[in-house]
Amino acid sequence: MGKNVFFFSKEQTDGNATMKELLGGKGANLAEMSELDIPVPPGFTLTTEVCGYFQDHEGNYPDGLREEVADSLKKLETATGKIFGNVENPLLISVRSGAFVSMPGMMDTILNLGVTDETVAGLAAKSGNERFAYDSYRRLLQMYGDVVMNLKPETETDHDPFEEILEALKNEKGAKLDTDLSTEDLKELVARFKAVIEQKAGRPFPQDPTEQLWGAIEAVFSSWNNPRAIKYRQINDIKGLLGTAVNVQAMVFGNMGDGCGTGVAFTRDPATGANEFYGEYLMNAQGEDVVAGIRTPLPISTLDDEMPGIYSELIDIRAKLEAHYRDMQDIEFTIEDGVLYMLQTRNGKRTAFSWLRSQVEMVREGLIAKDEAVSRVPASEFDKLFAPILDKKYIDRNELKPVANGLNASPGGACGQVVFSADEAETAAAAGKKVILVRIETSPEDIGGMNVAEGVVTARGGMTSHAAVVARGMGCPCVAGAEDLRIDYAAKKMTVGNLNIAQGDVISIDGFVGDIYNAEVPVMPSEIVQVLNGELSAENSELYRNYETFMSWADGFRTLGVRTNADTPHDTVIAVKFGAEGIGLTRTEHMFFEGDRIVSFRRLVLAAETVKRLRVDEEIDDLTELQKACKDDKAAVDAIRQYKQALQELLPLQRGDFEGIFKALNGLPATIRLLDPPLHEFLPHDAEGQKEVADVMGVSADIIREKVESLHEFNPMLGHRGCRLGIIYPEISEMQVRAIMEAACNVHKSGTPVKPEIMIPLVGHVKELALQRELSVQVANEVLTANGLTKAEIPYLVGTMIEVPRAAVTADQIATEADFFSFGTNDLTQMGCGFSRDDAGKFLKDYVELGIYDKDPFQVLDQAGVGKLVAMACELGRKTRPDIKLGICGEHGGEPSSVAFCHKVGLNYVSCSPYRVPVARLAAAQAAINS
Amino acid sequence: MGKNVFFFSKEQTDGNATMKELLGGKGANLAEMSELDIPVPPGFTLTTEVCGYFQDHEGNYPDGLREEVADSLKKLETATGKIFGNVENPLLISVRSGAFVSMPGMMDTILNLGVTDETVAGLAAKSGNERFAYDSYRRLLQMYGDVVMNLKPETETDHDPFEEILEALKNEKGAKLDTDLSTEDLKELVARFKAVIEQKAGRPFPQDPTEQLWGAIEAVFSSWNNPRAIKYRQINDIKGLLGTAVNVQAMVFGNMGDGCGTGVAFTRDPATGANEFYGEYLMNAQGEDVVAGIRTPLPISTLDDEMPGIYSELIDIRAKLEAHYRDMQDIEFTIEDGVLYMLQTRNGKRTAFSWLRSQVEMVREGLIAKDEAVSRVPASEFDKLFAPILDKKYIDRNELKPVANGLNASPGGACGQVVFSADEAETAAAAGKKVILVRIETSPEDIGGMNVAEGVVTARGGMTSHAAVVARGMGCPCVAGAEDLRIDYAAKKMTVGNLNIAQGDVISIDGFVGDIYNAEVPVMPSEIVQVLNGELSAENSELYRNYETFMSWADGFRTLGVRTNADTPHDTVIAVKFGAEGIGLTRTEHMFFEGDRIVSFRRLVLAAETVKRLRVDEEIDDLTELQKACKDDKAAVDAIRQYKQALQELLPLQRGDFEGIFKALNGLPATIRLLDPPLHEFLPHDAEGQKEVADVMGVSADIIREKVESLHEFNPMLGHRGCRLGIIYPEISEMQVRAIMEAACNVHKSGTPVKPEIMIPLVGHVKELALQRELSVQVANEVLTANGLTKAEIPYLVGTMIEVPRAAVTADQIATEADFFSFGTNDLTQMGCGFSRDDAGKFLKDYVELGIYDKDPFQVLDQAGVGKLVAMACELGRKTRPDIKLGICGEHGGEPSSVAFCHKVGLNYVSCSPYRVPVARLAAAQAAINS
Repeated sequence: MGKNVFFFSKEQTDGNATMKELLGGKGANLAEMSELDIPVPPGFTLTTEVCGYFQDHEGNYPDGLREEVADSLKKLETATGKIFGNVENPLLISVRSGAFVSMPGMMDTILNLGVTDETVAGLAAKSGNERFAYDSYRRLLQMYGDVVMNLKPETETDHDPFEEILEALKNEKGAKLDTDLSTEDLKELVARFKAVIEQKAGRPFPQDPTEQLWGAIEAVFSSWNNPRAIKYRQINDIKGLLGTAVNVQAMVFGNMGDGCGTGVAFTRDPATGANEFYGEYLMNAQGEDVVAGIRTPLPISTLDDEMPGIYSELIDIRAKLEAHYRDMQDIEFTIEDGVLYMLQTRNGKRTAFSWLRSQVEMVREGLIAKDEAVSRVPASEFDKLFAPILDKKYIDRNELKPVANGLNASPGGACGQVVFSADEAETAAAAGKKVILVRIETSPEDIGGMNVAEGVVTARGGMTSHAAVVARGMGCPCVAGAEDLRIDYAAKKMTVGNLNIAQGDVISIDGFVGDIYNAEVPVMPSEIVQVLNGELSAENSELYRNYETFMSWADGFRTLGVRTNADTPHDTVIAVKFGAEGIGLTRTEHMFFEGDRIVSFRRLVLAAETVKRLRVDEEIDDLTELQKACKDDKAAVDAIRQYKQALQELLPLQRGDFEGIFKALNGLPATIRLLDPPLHEFLPHDAEGQKEVADVMGVSADIIREKVESLHEFNPMLGHRGCRLGIIYPEISEMQVRAIMEAACNVHKSGTPVKPEIMIPLVGHVKELALQRELSVQVANEVLTANGLTKAEIPYLVGTMIEVPRAAVTADQIATEADFFSFGTNDLTQMGCGFSRDDAGKFLKDYVELGIYDKDPFQVLDQAGVGKLVAMACELGRKTRPDIKLGICGEHGGEPSSVAFCHKVGLNYVSCSPYRVPVARLAAAQAAINS
Repeated sequence: MGKNVFFFSKEQTDGNATMKELLGGKGANLAEMSELDIPVPPGFTLTTEVCGYFQDHEGNYPDGLREEVADSLKKLETATGKIFGNVENPLLISVRSGAFVSMPGMMDTILNLGVTDETVAGLAAKSGNERFAYDSYRRLLQMYGDVVMNLKPETETDHDPFEEILEALKNEKGAKLDTDLSTEDLKELVARFKAVIEQKAGRPFPQDPTEQLWGAIEAVFSSWNNPRAIKYRQINDIKGLLGTAVNVQAMVFGNMGDGCGTGVAFTRDPATGANEFYGEYLMNAQGEDVVAGIRTPLPISTLDDEMPGIYSELIDIRAKLEAHYRDMQDIEFTIEDGVLYMLQTRNGKRTAFSWLRSQVEMVREGLIAKDEAVSRVPASEFDKLFAPILDKKYIDRNELKPVANGLNASPGGACGQVVFSADEAETAAAAGKKVILVRIETSPEDIGGMNVAEGVVTARGGMTSHAAVVARGMGCPCVAGAEDLRIDYAAKKMTVGNLNIAQGDVISIDGFVGDIYNAEVPVMPSEIVQVLNGELSAENSELYRNYETFMSWADGFRTLGVRTNADTPHDTVIAVKFGAEGIGLTRTEHMFFEGDRIVSFRRLVLAAETVKRLRVDEEIDDLTELQKACKDDKAAVDAIRQYKQALQELLPLQRGDFEGIFKALNGLPATIRLLDPPLHEFLPHDAEGQKEVADVMGVSADIIREKVESLHEFNPMLGHRGCRLGIIYPEISEMQVRAIMEAACNVHKSGTPVKPEIMIPLVGHVKELALQRELSVQVANEVLTANGLTKAEIPYLVGTMIEVPRAAVTADQIATEADFFSFGTNDLTQMGCGFSRDDAGKFLKDYVELGIYDKDPFQVLDQAGVGKLVAMACELGRKTRPDIKLGICGEHGGEPSSVAFCHKVGLNYVSCSPYRVPVARLAAAQAAINS
């Protein structure tokens, strides 16, 4: 191993911002700021390699580490002019975690190290503030006791022994706030804290500062693998890191009196992206007080009144940091006796709104280039721009007033039943309920509940509180620090004024402004969607204009086409507004469920098997001939008649569907998939449903039940579906192709160009495709001829899904019959990996936790396995037919890393649900930029 | 197109035996025999290309065909000295089908062409036999009417108008047999036949012989695509042929009087292979009379008494043909007025017994080489050698006597319920019943019923009758020509003497000797199996000795290993006797169903999910730690205890299983697969079964029901099974590996070497294998150490099934963790093709009929698709690990064409069920010879 400890101070700095992997984000940026002559308390960083070594060697350190730390400590004493453990002039230090990726609040921190029974007096003397000295001591005792000596309670319901002692003392002294306690009270608190430590830990609080330091270092390194840190990394998909760095830094105190304070800020608004200095501070407080949300801090702008010099210095630093880092920064600072210290800078987490606006404006400001702007915005969060909002008109019409107001901590409107614990949120959500999680404040243990909640409300905490940071990251609407709420966990209710809100009551929240309504408010489309729908003028929406600008840049880089999966004209219209360049998948089966047509389709299903049996018995394929041959068998004739009639009924309905879609596309291509699911999906499986259907259809419930039983499949996923239906029941394919082509002719004649692409599903063997293609081409040409049109006028294509592994590996053969391939990666994942999507939940979660798959392969394309099948099929397909059109219509088509894969293997387009179209456009642009 | 018509005669022959594809088997061999100076009536052959042209051009012929036929007819007139259509000296000809592959009785034949109202008199005068002339005429009218003019009834129940007229006339005349009719009667018959033709066909029987000829040619070409011919080709998997040839040949008559006769013969015994001239003949009959089974013919040896000169000539021809063709021949001959004519020779169809003996003896005779012998015997029929036989001891003990006796037409013992029609046979077989199909005689329409019957009995017909030929081909035991049976289709019963046997009564038949028992006789192992089992001495079994000899030749050519799939010591012993070189697959799950152990395993299943949930909740994997953490939760503690206890109970049972298998293998390797099926397969799905289980286990039925419901899967094939079980429940894998290794140590210590191969099922991702391999190696080494043994002493391997497509395409990765691959082609077919084996019956049959797949891919490996995955995995696996051991354990491992594929891609071994081992050995030898 190389150098283990990196020093930073005004005079000497070993590291810089490029060394985040080794020094962690915090350590690297502290070094960088030191180099930039920004005031940073000096210190040193133990590398992430040390953490890796520590994990791999059962808590041992690499050789020489202790000496390196001792040397650095010496330098620190020189830089600060204080001595660690010295009775007269004690150096106090902090020990903080800091990984490559920020994991706020997940790992441990210990402040005020170096205070002992002996040095506390020196600290008092040197600072001239005995109360401060003992306050620092009791803070150290509590943090050290909790973190290093493991006195922290393991569950939410247990009590922290230090908090209990503090509350007891406050009661004894009649003190309301901590600050009401006197110096003598704090001395008593120190005594009681030391006693409880010795009692519970079985050993006293260490009076040797070096022992304190090494205890803290070990605790921070160990905290890398505490359960909540592991869970955080899982949720946020943080992988492949060695561990955390440890930052040892001279303490500066925001809690030494009136000239002191501490704060956190963003160089731009993390919610909206506005180019405004945005933050909060608390006077006479340590930094943890702001972040923990225990006291509600003041807006940063008011600091201009209180300490104008400091404020002006901060404004300069803000400008310097943005110019240097060329991105929005998230900073922490402390003011000690009128002197400003920067404790942290990092690229700021922000909402999708903030990402969009900040990047667009930074391009305009000349700070960054367009490709930087496009490649930075996280595509995975981009669809939050289209997140719903509360219906303002409903609120006005019903003259609703907010019952409480808090900080607009995470944008979005939400409505749901109130729950007061993360567990209850998870239970209710699992039962299909929409919930709003209401907490006094949130902690890392609440992440599971926040993950399933529609929205989050806290009674305490600011914009940088845990609730606010996490909710923004999740795209979950959040109102934080709604201080009027009185929350009673035990009674499962909250009160605001005279109003009682019990668990299960419905509330609505507006995360854009921080309002809480004691009512069920309809949730509306986002502002961008409203503009797209013509409900709002673009002039009145800066958000929309930024979006338009940004997307035009993205489209400029993008080479991959983006289509949509849409089954209705309505969805098609939305998708086209979102920039879809055509339809990649229309599922025709959904259409059969609409209105009365399900009756016709069910009639078809009931007759189909009989028709098939007759065909086999009579060895006659032609329906009319078959009917003649069976003329003496009434049941047979009835079945054939019913089959034909149902198809005749469905034809005009399907034609109407397709006309609507073609019109909505206005000349863009539409890939329409023929019937895919097994026929039993169209019949109800429960007795009640069967009875209903029987009544509607005028047959006995037994007939329906028998049909359902005869159609039953053990593994429907691998059953009689897809092109296997069209091959056994060619009339269904014929009807569908006829409907598509007649619709195309009609719309073409009305003056709108049409590009139909007929897609045959579930092909595994080229001969399946050959049969269905032959049928399709024959019907299509018949319809064209009947309409006096030619293929030049309606240039239809016939192609196939590639979703059966066999099709992927024989794609060279399949391509002989296919104008295009569309990868159905949902089914290809099911068959390729052998996972039933309906069942795999039972083990897939464990699989991801065990690291067998990095991600759920149904959400993120399994590139090594399923992706290999896709890549192979692309190569084989192009070998046969170099100009074959290649696309993807599985749900992976809207997932950024999968889109990047599609770009890499050279697909022509991806197709995804309408609301994911902008995500796919952005991901495609990023893939092009990064390739 | 080239030459369409090939002439053959003593003087000029255009074709030869190598031209079977063009001239059909019959035509090519007629030409070849002509060349060999064997007496053959002259004639000419229209090629199969003409048939192909005819099919493709809506019944039109290629240009110039009519001229070629006319020229050939002229040559034929010259060769015979007769004139076609000449009133004084009429040439009569036959028109017969003849494809590349023999399709006996499937296509049409017309004899006696050239008889007209005018020529019949000349024929009478020339032959001096007026009765013969009119008999020929009435035969022509019936055949031509049935075949060319389509008067043949379409269904079994309809009557042939000619038969009706014949019966009526016989009744009028008081005639019992056809031969009782006088010349005048035959003239009357001719008149009536002509009348019925004109009446039913709407046009008269053509009096122009040339018109007759072309009508017959067209009928024969058309008959290539008649439904029964199509069905025959499907059943016998005959594909890729252009069509049938048409052989036009001068008639010779076996029915002209006492010096006349006709017969069919084999150069060796087609049932046993004995080197004896074997055949039958009828005096004063046409050839069709022998084959159709209407009269029961005489054994060929009696011809020596009747016509010793002819017999001696036949014996010479027999020798000449065998020497020339170097294989057993199936011949047809006719004797006309004391002159012998050969009408056909072809390689004889025969039983597996006959194949074996004839080939072994031909090698000994120096006629053929060993590789020829080995490569000729159809591997697909080889397992019929091991077909069961009737239990002779049971027959003796119960003093059973045959109630009837017929010809030993197809070997094998069978027992089942009597049915009297093919349809009833199919219905009963579909309902799971074992049936014996009893018919007066069979016809091509009966093939479906014969296919599902255990055995076939006919009351009429000889060894070469339809029933006998088809049953031998199917390996279906058959007793033919049991003339004492009086069969009454209408009453659905038969009588023999005073005994009534009704439909549904059980009979037993012995196809080796032709006996029929009115009793249920147990069916016993074959003679070879009896020798292998030590129940019969090899000295007393020539069959066994030939088998041993033949297999030793085969093994000499074979390079592919052959293992067996066996789950019990019993099966293992059998398989080793059949030559298995180890076990390729032991399915451990079957063992859990035995006896009481299912209770323990069900206890495990009931507890497993609770244990899993606790693990997730507590974040503790170790069972003991988990139990500690849950100590206050009684239900949790109970579940953990039950889980551990069930595993402890199962361990010694499994160990015992494996000890038995290792002992049976006596040092051969054993691949043992860890638990594969989903857990719900071990619980009953019906309420009654659940109640029973609940009672046995002492829990409420609701608990069982709830567990079944919670374990329910929509697609269990793609569900929580295979290694997914071992990963979520590692203790199950641990227990199994421990049982395997402890058994291995115990057996090793007892002095028997052991080679265990631990196989991880359903691996899709290398990390799954890595986890299970790590666990297996750890447990294995623990057990070895505990027993004071080393891996050198018990060289265990850990490998995986390749049955998930993802595993096949990432086999390079998988191979990093696998000592061996075993291709599970059953599941690889299910997932690769997307076919659920349990459901695909609904369309797979149609798929094969439509030619989408050549064969059911579950029976014959789909080489282009699934095989591509296999080949890819072999290549990738070897790239990573050049010495990786490769095998197959799907059911394809015993199917000859699939075995050939395995040889081609270079697998180390195939594994199949015990009784298929000899088939696989033979197929592997043939693959080596043919490669």
